Amino acid sequence: MLNETNSPTQVNQDEITPIPLTVGISARHVHLTREDVDTLFGAGHQLTVFKDLSQPGQFACEEMVTVVGPKGVIEKVRVLGPERPQSQVELSISDCFKLGIKAPLRDSGDLSGSSPITLVGPVGAVTLKEGAIIAARHIHMHTTDAEKYHLEDRDRIYVRAKGPRGIIFGDVLVRVSDNAKTEMHVDTDEGNAVGLRNGDTVYAYKIHGHISELVK
Amino acid sequence: MLNETNSPTQVNQDEITPIPLTVGISARHVHLTREDVDTLFGAGHQLTVFKDLSQPGQFACEEMVTVVGPKGVIEKVRVLGPERPQSQVELSISDCFKLGIKAPLRDSGDLSGSSPITLVGPVGAVTLKEGAIIAARHIHMHTTDAEKYHLEDRDRIYVRAKGPRGIIFGDVLVRVSDNAKTEMHVDTDEGNAVGLRNGDTVYAYKIHGHISELVK
Repeated sequence: MLNETNSPTQVNQDEITPIPLTVGISARHVHLTREDVDTLFGAGHQLTVFKDLSQPGQFACEEMVTVVGPKGVIEKVRVLGPERPQSQVELSISDCFKLGIKAPLRDSGDLSGSSPITLVGPVGAVTLKEGAIIAARHIHMHTTDAEKYHLEDRDRIYVRAKGPRGIIFGDVLVRVSDNAKTEMHVDTDEGNAVGLRNGDTVYAYKIHGHISELVK
Repeated sequence: MLNETNSPTQVNQDEITPIPLTVGISARHVHLTREDVDTLFGAGHQLTVFKDLSQPGQFACEEMVTVVGPKGVIEKVRVLGPERPQSQVELSISDCFKLGIKAPLRDSGDLSGSSPITLVGPVGAVTLKEGAIIAARHIHMHTTDAEKYHLEDRDRIYVRAKGPRGIIFGDVLVRVSDNAKTEMHVDTDEGNAVGLRNGDTVYAYKIHGHISELVK
């Protein structure tokens, strides 16, 4: 099987030392502006904390909405707080098939030209001209951890999940912040493809390309 | 970033030469015994070809069933023909959450101790004592291709899907047969995690472990 006539590729030890990360699986959810909270839940309505999320200051709300697309509807989609400058609907590819939309793969907050979508609450409805995305998997990393692992904000690295459905995720975006809890976020399609559950451990590698690309 | 004090890992050229494969995405489906066809669709009922599948002799049927679990129901699940010696229900992890079952990850046909499940057809219902599985991703490979790529039946290799949600699937089972069309099969969770569509090309590599394991 081995081809002895070719010289071997070199992979550096630093690139194959695993960085353990806890996984959080993001189900579909909605972030809302102050104005859209008014429209959906009533003027002056305050979002109610259902439970705190792992990232500091973020929380799941008691409030839920119905997401409506041209070919389907998804009920009971959780609102996450606090309010944001622009409403954003984070969906999986499975959800997009059901709704009949083609939302783009984007980093959170990068909404220019993203899909239009309709939200319905107990008081009213709003049709966003843009705002529906498939959220790109990413790693939240506290500054202290980034220094420890010699990583910088917006680095892209590989992450390996072990097990019978073991997988290596390529090009995982690293977001470094003083206000982050170090954690990897994937969506439900990605979690279910691997059989991951919240709190599982995965391993990041600083290798910056597939090994096939290391051959020069 | 590089650690010059450690010696490099060696990766052989033969392990990083890509083998292109066409992808087929398997939606949830059911294989039935002659007896279960009788029970669900009526004594002596013959399965009707809806369309031929890529693997020779396999076909999707006009017939569909309702799959019932302890916590949920999935309607319009396609029956695949021809009939088999044991009925088998292939589901995604997403489906299992909806149905409220914990089906094991298995190769097709390996049903001992798999999950019980109820199927309902237009004439009757059957509760299988076992038969519900999450099908392990796999590569069907024609003998001629296996010889060309120096692969053997039951080899396990890595498969890379490129793109913005690029991924490397580990431990992909290779099934070699004179009656196979060379193709990789994944389920809908795996396809949606990557954004794959039927007919996309992925690349297999004969490397037998993650690069981190090549360090001796």
